[in-house]
Amino acid sequence: MPVLRSIRERFASERPLDGVAVAACLHVTAETANLVRALAAGGARVALCAANPLSTQDDVAAALAQEGMEVLAVRGEGPERYAGHVEALVAAGPDVTLDDGADLITALHEGGRAGGMLGGTEETTSGLVRLRALDLACPVLAVNEARTERAVNDRYGTGQSALDGILRATNLLLAGRTLVVLGYGYAGQGVAQRARGLGASVIVCEVDPLRALEARMEGFEVMPALRAAERGDVFVTVTGARDVLTSEHFARMRDGAVLANAGHFDVEIALGDLAALARDVREVRPLVRSYDLGDRRLHLLAEGRVVNLAAAEGHPAAVMDVSFATQALAVEALARGGFPRGVHPVPARIDDEVARLKLASLGVEIDTLTPGQQAYLRVWDDPSP
Amino acid sequence: MPVLRSIRERFASERPLDGVAVAACLHVTAETANLVRALAAGGARVALCAANPLSTQDDVAAALAQEGMEVLAVRGEGPERYAGHVEALVAAGPDVTLDDGADLITALHEGGRAGGMLGGTEETTSGLVRLRALDLACPVLAVNEARTERAVNDRYGTGQSALDGILRATNLLLAGRTLVVLGYGYAGQGVAQRARGLGASVIVCEVDPLRALEARMEGFEVMPALRAAERGDVFVTVTGARDVLTSEHFARMRDGAVLANAGHFDVEIALGDLAALARDVREVRPLVRSYDLGDRRLHLLAEGRVVNLAAAEGHPAAVMDVSFATQALAVEALARGGFPRGVHPVPARIDDEVARLKLASLGVEIDTLTPGQQAYLRVWDDPSP
Amino acid sequence: MPVLRSIRERFASERPLDGVAVAACLHVTAETANLVRALAAGGARVALCAANPLSTQDDVAAALAQEGMEVLAVRGEGPERYAGHVEALVAAGPDVTLDDGADLITALHEGGRAGGMLGGTEETTSGLVRLRALDLACPVLAVNEARTERAVNDRYGTGQSALDGILRATNLLLAGRTLVVLGYGYAGQGVAQRARGLGASVIVCEVDPLRALEARMEGFEVMPALRAAERGDVFVTVTGARDVLTSEHFARMRDGAVLANAGHFDVEIALGDLAALARDVREVRPLVRSYDLGDRRLHLLAEGRVVNLAAAEGHPAAVMDVSFATQALAVEALARGGFPRGVHPVPARIDDEVARLKLASLGVEIDTLTPGQQAYLRVWDDPSP
Amino acid sequence: MPVLRSIRERFASERPLDGVAVAACLHVTAETANLVRALAAGGARVALCAANPLSTQDDVAAALAQEGMEVLAVRGEGPERYAGHVEALVAAGPDVTLDDGADLITALHEGGRAGGMLGGTEETTSGLVRLRALDLACPVLAVNEARTERAVNDRYGTGQSALDGILRATNLLLAGRTLVVLGYGYAGQGVAQRARGLGASVIVCEVDPLRALEARMEGFEVMPALRAAERGDVFVTVTGARDVLTSEHFARMRDGAVLANAGHFDVEIALGDLAALARDVREVRPLVRSYDLGDRRLHLLAEGRVVNLAAAEGHPAAVMDVSFATQALAVEALARGGFPRGVHPVPARIDDEVARLKLASLGVEIDTLTPGQQAYLRVWDDPSP
Repeated sequence: MPVLRSIRERFASERPLDGVAVAACLHVTAETANLVRALAAGGARVALCAANPLSTQDDVAAALAQEGMEVLAVRGEGPERYAGHVEALVAAGPDVTLDDGADLITALHEGGRAGGMLGGTEETTSGLVRLRALDLACPVLAVNEARTERAVNDRYGTGQSALDGILRATNLLLAGRTLVVLGYGYAGQGVAQRARGLGASVIVCEVDPLRALEARMEGFEVMPALRAAERGDVFVTVTGARDVLTSEHFARMRDGAVLANAGHFDVEIALGDLAALARDVREVRPLVRSYDLGDRRLHLLAEGRVVNLAAAEGHPAAVMDVSFATQALAVEALARGGFPRGVHPVPARIDDEVARLKLASLGVEIDTLTPGQQAYLRVWDDPSP
Repeated sequence: MPVLRSIRERFASERPLDGVAVAACLHVTAETANLVRALAAGGARVALCAANPLSTQDDVAAALAQEGMEVLAVRGEGPERYAGHVEALVAAGPDVTLDDGADLITALHEGGRAGGMLGGTEETTSGLVRLRALDLACPVLAVNEARTERAVNDRYGTGQSALDGILRATNLLLAGRTLVVLGYGYAGQGVAQRARGLGASVIVCEVDPLRALEARMEGFEVMPALRAAERGDVFVTVTGARDVLTSEHFARMRDGAVLANAGHFDVEIALGDLAALARDVREVRPLVRSYDLGDRRLHLLAEGRVVNLAAAEGHPAAVMDVSFATQALAVEALARGGFPRGVHPVPARIDDEVARLKLASLGVEIDTLTPGQQAYLRVWDDPSP
Repeated sequence: MPVLRSIRERFASERPLDGVAVAACLHVTAETANLVRALAAGGARVALCAANPLSTQDDVAAALAQEGMEVLAVRGEGPERYAGHVEALVAAGPDVTLDDGADLITALHEGGRAGGMLGGTEETTSGLVRLRALDLACPVLAVNEARTERAVNDRYGTGQSALDGILRATNLLLAGRTLVVLGYGYAGQGVAQRARGLGASVIVCEVDPLRALEARMEGFEVMPALRAAERGDVFVTVTGARDVLTSEHFARMRDGAVLANAGHFDVEIALGDLAALARDVREVRPLVRSYDLGDRRLHLLAEGRVVNLAAAEGHPAAVMDVSFATQALAVEALARGGFPRGVHPVPARIDDEVARLKLASLGVEIDTLTPGQQAYLRVWDDPSP
Repeated sequence: MPVLRSIRERFASERPLDGVAVAACLHVTAETANLVRALAAGGARVALCAANPLSTQDDVAAALAQEGMEVLAVRGEGPERYAGHVEALVAAGPDVTLDDGADLITALHEGGRAGGMLGGTEETTSGLVRLRALDLACPVLAVNEARTERAVNDRYGTGQSALDGILRATNLLLAGRTLVVLGYGYAGQGVAQRARGLGASVIVCEVDPLRALEARMEGFEVMPALRAAERGDVFVTVTGARDVLTSEHFARMRDGAVLANAGHFDVEIALGDLAALARDVREVRPLVRSYDLGDRRLHLLAEGRVVNLAAAEGHPAAVMDVSFATQALAVEALARGGFPRGVHPVPARIDDEVARLKLASLGVEIDTLTPGQQAYLRVWDDPSP
């Protein structure tokens, strides 16, 4: 994780978090350890509990504790113990929080202790939904909506890892097959592009007309999902919506069709419909469930859960590096103060900084504008986003 | 222009512009005629003068006049006559204006007659710069910043037509060559993508780190322009800035390098630097000027003017269709009223409508969300752009 | 033409054609001049007549004559004069011939003067058909079947120039359109690849199962032509066969479909069928003929003649460079002697040499096998083609 | 394996192998079982021993024995028992053999029992090397040199599975990285194309000038391996030669570079050189060995063995289907008789048939030539390959 490493080195020399009390409620893994170490290197006092007890790596927890952080996380701990850990972090009165689901900052608000905080960061869409429904007493930076993160994680990260998951689960040759991508947001764009890159014909289904037009201008076929159902060998849902593939679609699919979901929740493929249509269900390979519909078989991957996590290793380290770098710089920005209450996008200069460090980690140099060019562009500058 | 045609048909039946006085200061060409006819079909009284007397097609002007529009445009008319034409439109007191450079609406403001207007549309970046510097008395919709237009015109339109211009001017085989794209905005993305599609190796130079990162993640090489100068066979500037290629770059280029500009103004390639370095300059093919630098020759296309207009036919009709459709719907939106004073983006529903009609013209159908999906997404809806 | 230039330089120093009498019956153009000058530089005595009187450039003929070659070619000369010119070359008794249609070498056989010749080269498929039907008295090298030429000319040359011709003729935006390629030989592969590179969805029609399978594995849709007829916006025939698109296909095409031929002869699109179906035919742009079929219009480009020649400039110089370099090296090989009678492929070492020189002209260096690798590979060497 | 299944169905009704004694020395796996069942369905009496005792699946062997075949294979059997099994097959005097390494047919020659055979098939390059060195007493068909197999297996099969292996071993994000492919035969073409499709910049190193030129015309950078050594993040050897990457190259590589081999033998990356340079070697992930060179670390995948087998699942079933289908049709062709002694390419009509069946299995239909087109093409037919 070279981007985060370079931030840590700068933090170690600049100490921008000196005296700041940081409380983090995150997955306690080796990657997270890199993040909290960067914060500690910047001068922060760090306390950590587990966003999900099942993902806690006890050796990581132990190592961080030895390095002087307060770590309240035990793999498999029950709900009560978890609640106690969150409470302990609340009681300590942090200046800045990091959340992966908004549990900690919500608890601080419930305990009336959020008012004096410098602010928090939130990494998930669902956490942001919770926070936007609150009357926030402090600022929160929406890390997973940062432009750099979206571009790198959603398009390139999910694009590669979703197909990686499908290949690992099925060992299917994609060349010569038709792959249907349902949803053409960043992640759908990535899946479509990578599937084409692996030799598949790609059909895109999308309800937003502008996105659908972009897909068509990129040379993909675009059509309604019911029509695509008759054509596809592999279907990948990545819409964020529910019931994207239902019995209507299953009824038209070809024998041997493969169904995978790359959206966050397992609601995109209507599993109930599939079960209802099937005479028999068998596991034909690990993570591949074959539904016998009488005249045809459909193959569901990873029970409709997000296929890049369930069947592959999720995002490559290069992608997590960008996320955690954004987190670290967001904490630094909050520590400087000046944000009003409420949920805010990550400042553009952080996006720029992360992109710049990421380029450096790839060994890529770029130019900067000359003063003459800056002067010229100030006149013409285009205020649109 | 099937998108505009379908709007015209709807306008003819719905008459949304009944009684609205529209004054347009546009290029008086066959394409523009389609636009003003659509407005007239919607019930508008239309008066028209020429944004540029050199582009006026007299037969088009005559035909529109015969159809009952007031047309004040003669090919090659002098500045005085032009000013008189604008004045006449101002004096008539239009409700809505269409501009291609902001001349008409500026004159209305100077004449103190803009206050009662429903508003205007502006098609150029330079016009918007003028208008954003004014204290506007009415709303203006920034048509050329519409998302659909940007995507279709800038990426796909310029992407294809810039390369078309280069091929027509040079008859060069792109396969096996290295093409350097300077600038990776929408238009630069289009040029890079199409050049790769024609078999070139593509190098991108870009000062914005996030764009540079995206270029790199798309598999392009990214590097400073001075380094790229040593590698390229063809250089295409499309930055919006000035002095992008200067004597420093020319000094490092290979014998036979081709220089083309796809940005709006002829300032991106430093023509003075090139002339100063050259011992001799010759026209070796139409639109190809060869600069003899002693040990090497550099070939400048179309004197550094925008190569897709100068060496090819500019945007395909399919692209102009999208622009003019956006104009027509913007006029309809202004006629409905309700916009505050100042420059505004084109409303998202117009982008959606244009995209939807464009898809229909391509024979593409898409789905819409079911009520159940809409309900589900309302909870999760993501307020970020 | 840097490849031919480097051959010419070597010829000038090595003089491999000293004393060889070369007679050429080729298009007398600036490009051909480069070829015959290279042969002359190598020591050959060169005599030249015109393969096609309509393509003769009189200034080129005059210049070559001034340089000491015997040039028997006048633009627009009649059949009698042409026959006289061929006769004169025959009478002179050349050692080596170059043909573009087999006229000269056939005349030498008819005159009984081919027996003592070192041999000839032939540049066209139709010429080779004639020669393969003869009982040849000398060797002939089939230049246009050379592997380098096939790869560069047919795939990359035709791929780019056919699309260039279509864009020049129509100014159509390819992104978002469906382009149907009929025929997936080298040239069809090139057209399909470049069309995809310009944003089109590409459908391939092909009768050879292995080629069809390759097209499918490359991610193209593959289907019978009648089915493709309903889907395409643009159709490109490049099969070498006749009657590829007939009334059956026209009857199913969409309004506005564009028809172009990139095969050698104008028999691939059944022009008679098209005329028979049309109520009215109009030239709507130069080289675009619109056939009104009542409910639809079809647009035929360049009267069905090869679109890259008729609507664009034919092969780029980089492509002709490879052809003429192969010709020059074939003459050198014939001069060395040792070929038996009959038509032969161009020796592999000539292909290698042309490829090597072409790489050098592109500034590309490559490795060679080490002695250890050569020894290893001798054991494993794979005798299959 | 739908192609093989359709052949089996035809065999069952046509019985082309009635009375033919087939002896096979192959890997005794589930896939092989499909092949021998197809032969048995065609009427053959089948006897089977194991080409490699380690790959024998005992349950498959038992099942085939129950179906009436003679199966002489036990997982892990020693060399003596293996030799006995081969001897037993020899003693039975088969009409047709199938080999995966030429052991069985060599033994038949040594025993002087090959003279009366209809012939054999051989699936490996190394087996063919052995057979081409023999004075064969019967015909042998070189199955792994069949054109369909080469195209599908080498380009598309290896292209996907090599990258699949690299991703599984490393979980690296390929977008934004530079991947160097050493060797641009079919398999190298596949790796290069797929790597680009996954967002990598691709550099090709190749010693054959024509292949190098094709790589360049496809838009890849082409350069000597020593130069590429400085640029790559990932290196994939697929040349068939030895010592392709040696200490010279390792010395120039960047920290973190990944080394993978997709060629048949583990001699392409000079493992001894790597070991000699390293201060320390550690397994950092399964199948990833990190060599510490002091200032840099290089990561070797799967000890330099073929990465698509060692780190992924080898060829997808769709690829093996093509291989085994070619085997089955080759046996049928041998049973018909008429081949002279020696190694022969698989007849073109078998390639066509396999391609046709494969297309059908993908749901793809194609046209056939009309009689008129056949007549036209007979005249123009091009005898070159």
